Amino acid sequence: MERHVPEPTFTLEGWHILHDFRFLDFPGWLSAPKEARREAWEELKGLLSAWERVEAEGKGAFGVYQVVTHKADLLFLNLRESLDALLEVEEALNKSAFARFLRPAYGFYSVVELGSQTGPLDPESPYVKPRLTPKVPKGGYVCFYPMNKRRQGQDNWYMLPAKERAQLMKAHGETGRKYQGKVLQVISGAQGLDDWEWGVDLFSEDPIQFKKIVYEMRFDEVSARFGEFGPFYVGKYLSQEALARFLGVD
Amino acid sequence: MERHVPEPTFTLEGWHILHDFRFLDFPGWLSAPKEARREAWEELKGLLSAWERVEAEGKGAFGVYQVVTHKADLLFLNLRESLDALLEVEEALNKSAFARFLRPAYGFYSVVELGSQTGPLDPESPYVKPRLTPKVPKGGYVCFYPMNKRRQGQDNWYMLPAKERAQLMKAHGETGRKYQGKVLQVISGAQGLDDWEWGVDLFSEDPIQFKKIVYEMRFDEVSARFGEFGPFYVGKYLSQEALARFLGVD
Amino acid sequence: MERHVPEPTFTLEGWHILHDFRFLDFPGWLSAPKEARREAWEELKGLLSAWERVEAEGKGAFGVYQVVTHKADLLFLNLRESLDALLEVEEALNKSAFARFLRPAYGFYSVVELGSQTGPLDPESPYVKPRLTPKVPKGGYVCFYPMNKRRQGQDNWYMLPAKERAQLMKAHGETGRKYQGKVLQVISGAQGLDDWEWGVDLFSEDPIQFKKIVYEMRFDEVSARFGEFGPFYVGKYLSQEALARFLGVD
Amino acid sequence: MERHVPEPTFTLEGWHILHDFRFLDFPGWLSAPKEARREAWEELKGLLSAWERVEAEGKGAFGVYQVVTHKADLLFLNLRESLDALLEVEEALNKSAFARFLRPAYGFYSVVELGSQTGPLDPESPYVKPRLTPKVPKGGYVCFYPMNKRRQGQDNWYMLPAKERAQLMKAHGETGRKYQGKVLQVISGAQGLDDWEWGVDLFSEDPIQFKKIVYEMRFDEVSARFGEFGPFYVGKYLSQEALARFLGVD
Amino acid sequence: MERHVPEPTFTLEGWHILHDFRFLDFPGWLSAPKEARREAWEELKGLLSAWERVEAEGKGAFGVYQVVTHKADLLFLNLRESLDALLEVEEALNKSAFARFLRPAYGFYSVVELGSQTGPLDPESPYVKPRLTPKVPKGGYVCFYPMNKRRQGQDNWYMLPAKERAQLMKAHGETGRKYQGKVLQVISGAQGLDDWEWGVDLFSEDPIQFKKIVYEMRFDEVSARFGEFGPFYVGKYLSQEALARFLGVD
Repeated sequence: MERHVPEPTFTLEGWHILHDFRFLDFPGWLSAPKEARREAWEELKGLLSAWERVEAEGKGAFGVYQVVTHKADLLFLNLRESLDALLEVEEALNKSAFARFLRPAYGFYSVVELGSQTGPLDPESPYVKPRLTPKVPKGGYVCFYPMNKRRQGQDNWYMLPAKERAQLMKAHGETGRKYQGKVLQVISGAQGLDDWEWGVDLFSEDPIQFKKIVYEMRFDEVSARFGEFGPFYVGKYLSQEALARFLGVD
Repeated sequence: MERHVPEPTFTLEGWHILHDFRFLDFPGWLSAPKEARREAWEELKGLLSAWERVEAEGKGAFGVYQVVTHKADLLFLNLRESLDALLEVEEALNKSAFARFLRPAYGFYSVVELGSQTGPLDPESPYVKPRLTPKVPKGGYVCFYPMNKRRQGQDNWYMLPAKERAQLMKAHGETGRKYQGKVLQVISGAQGLDDWEWGVDLFSEDPIQFKKIVYEMRFDEVSARFGEFGPFYVGKYLSQEALARFLGVD
Repeated sequence: MERHVPEPTFTLEGWHILHDFRFLDFPGWLSAPKEARREAWEELKGLLSAWERVEAEGKGAFGVYQVVTHKADLLFLNLRESLDALLEVEEALNKSAFARFLRPAYGFYSVVELGSQTGPLDPESPYVKPRLTPKVPKGGYVCFYPMNKRRQGQDNWYMLPAKERAQLMKAHGETGRKYQGKVLQVISGAQGLDDWEWGVDLFSEDPIQFKKIVYEMRFDEVSARFGEFGPFYVGKYLSQEALARFLGVD
Repeated sequence: MERHVPEPTFTLEGWHILHDFRFLDFPGWLSAPKEARREAWEELKGLLSAWERVEAEGKGAFGVYQVVTHKADLLFLNLRESLDALLEVEEALNKSAFARFLRPAYGFYSVVELGSQTGPLDPESPYVKPRLTPKVPKGGYVCFYPMNKRRQGQDNWYMLPAKERAQLMKAHGETGRKYQGKVLQVISGAQGLDDWEWGVDLFSEDPIQFKKIVYEMRFDEVSARFGEFGPFYVGKYLSQEALARFLGVD
Repeated sequence: MERHVPEPTFTLEGWHILHDFRFLDFPGWLSAPKEARREAWEELKGLLSAWERVEAEGKGAFGVYQVVTHKADLLFLNLRESLDALLEVEEALNKSAFARFLRPAYGFYSVVELGSQTGPLDPESPYVKPRLTPKVPKGGYVCFYPMNKRRQGQDNWYMLPAKERAQLMKAHGETGRKYQGKVLQVISGAQGLDDWEWGVDLFSEDPIQFKKIVYEMRFDEVSARFGEFGPFYVGKYLSQEALARFLGVD
């Protein structure tokens, strides 16, 4: 049966991603002794510097965001070449003096993926490589959400013939392309890695674009019939200066 | 296919809304030293004054509410021209001395929206503009709930032809109009911004009207077949004087 | 279409109800200094006296219950003429010295309702008025649960013709009447007020009757096809003397 | 319609059951002063003695279990003649010095029931009475889980004709009988009493039998189509000596 | 009916498994006095030594893992010959000085199982025995997830004829075999033991293989139509040296 030809045949994996959402213990932070705050900030700056070096070496990318509503206060977004590198990022943050003022909010582990319905991709091609190792915009806003493809009665994505899946994804891609220049999309796979099948990161200079693209896409048959969506997190990019202001250590 | 003509073509976005529900740590607050309470109240009053200035300048709106049941104790409702402005509101509250006595309860980020099924709207028209930048009544009660349009088997909103959607929304609007003068409705979109697709705020002088309108609307086909409802929060408007009484600082 | 004739046309609202479930911090309470316990108990007695006065004036009703299992330890059930009066009840309890030993467990806000499928009801009639302002039995047991009417595929209550709904409710009422004298039922609506559409309170001298009536009713088509049930809370009525014994202050 | 002849016509109720699952605060317990531990253990032994007396008088039964995984550390299982007696058990445990080292994990209130599809049962018959007042094996393992009968589309238990329900239950009983001598089953009803419709206790000398009976029964049509299962708790019986060893007070 | 011939007829059970996921209290651990950390580490090493002895005697297996994201920090995976042995493992860990720095995250109790659709298996055969008593690889990564077989409308696994079930499982096994040498699979049954029907452990030198095998298998009809998946946990194997480094006690 045709449906037993899954797309992963032509899927390439790129960087590993860790979305690390944290609460900031505002009362604890604000009332901490000056010395404790200084030490925590120094250690956090040390982490940021290390992440910048990784980025400069082309071995990863990162961004820090101020998250809206009570879902989280901060997002530490890191992309790396391996799970080991992400575990080191997580461990270093947990062991830093700054972590005394953080509480876990939500996390997601996934791997950038690029699929092709027409044939194998060349991981070194100039079209493919940058998409497997995406840069994180140094500004603007991020929208992250995890999602599944539905397997429910007549609406079972994994029982569709491969050809029908390809057509539906193609139409979906066309909606996405209408937002080129306005919204940067990074798709990562999390099957076998986390509780949802995919993670989606949208980056934009204007958060209203998140609303527009998600709404318009929901009318694509692939979303309308097959999309199951997890929580949505929206954050604003924080440069080191903005982070210092947010923490009151500037 | 006609269903690929989504309504967002004719949707306008207005103010950004933050619903910030908090618990009050009653034992902590009541047993705090007088000086700590005074400081906390002064800082909270400072925030209220700042929010009033924004309102006076026509750049936003706000309301504070006493919420019934254990879902929350207080709602800080703020509307602003941008996400940045809302993040500043949230950050300032979190950093205030009063926040030491608050715990997060629930939050929701959405953007006021106005849709048209017949053609583009003029954002500056006297019919449109006030609805994109709604005033918050200075009294009475609020009912807030988030909601989705269902995508389930035969009841899949996003797979309906645009014409059918328009008819269903029109009938729904007629039910709403029966409550004109009794219930003020503010609809905001949260696709791509929060976990539900829409937020609904109802304002009324009589909380029984919330029960009546929600119940009657549930018999509209659009609600009966397609409405998925989140938690309902009901609160009573608190003027600064009422808030002072609630906190025992009057 | 007939289904657009909803029942609320013939619905009357009565008293507002607050179900306030709390945990008792047993270790904290048992190890508190004698003076702190005495003060807390005095303030709690003050609240009970105030609630009794309201009851004597015919402006409300109340009951305190010892709740079984870890869902809660105590239920403070209050009925009043308005949401404002309930907010005052909740606020006074939260501000009392006794609240230092309480933790929130669950709450529900609803309004007593009485519906008629045959025509408008007279709120002052001797049949109607007592049912809109129900007395709380001073003894026995309570069973509280919230519920929805299902809207799922073919089992969509709100899409049924009014006539069919009326027939189903009539058969349901007949099952209920078989328990007259054994179980007192109070139905309250929570559409637009809380997360479930209705709250149900059953009062009986024998908790086995809760099991019997709920089980038998589940075979009524209206429950079997359309009933969605929330958590069930069962408690034993505590007179002031029994409450004093429970708290060890007798 | 035949389906309006529910089985409760021929249902008998027996003892009331409280499943009281608790966490043990290991760090707190292990670091408590010797005197506090001794006092706590003495009070716990006092409760066990009281429960043994009730058992000796034929007015109840009990068992204490060490529970596997993080769902709970201890299960206090008590059967009594009334809800009042169970509330006393719960209250006495909560007020004991040992409760300072316990945290609530999960609880379930239900009533032993025995149904007959063929006619009324004699509660005093030698076949019926022991099953309404079951003894708790003094050894081995327990498996507890709550469950519902499904009411979903075509799989709606409560809409089946009584005859079909009887046939399905008969086949199910035959599977159960294959485990006679290996697994003791106690079925209790919780309609109107707790969040699930039934509680099931399995007792066995070998926990693998829990796996075998539950798996085999799942192929019975009544489980396959109509069974909805809650969490499963597995524990090992603790005699007073074993409990003392578990607590390190032997 | 053929469907009343369940597979358990030909199922063999092997070792009992406890997945014990824990959070590490990083701030507490990092700020603990040197002596408390030393004592905790010594006791943890004592447990590891005991587990190694069990492994050397062929009576069990174990692995410790660093878990990614906020689901957990550490996984203590233990396989033993009986539930009693697992309860001892859990109890010893809970009573160790190291447990003061641990918090429960998630746990799962299951039993290794091996099924045959063609006839009874010989538990002592060289093909069967090692699979019932699996070794834990001393390196690489683990992926653990629990799962159910769906019982929903037309997609009800337990209502399928045994022959159809056998065919679907056979095709699924073929997908699995494509990963031989890359991914080691251990399947355990948890019916009657925990909240999901099965637990799955995948072991690999490369976490990308978890993504590939889970994704490819999802297109097998048995997963597409009948698989319901719980949370996914991914961890990296920690030797005692790596664990010492993770804890900063090397």
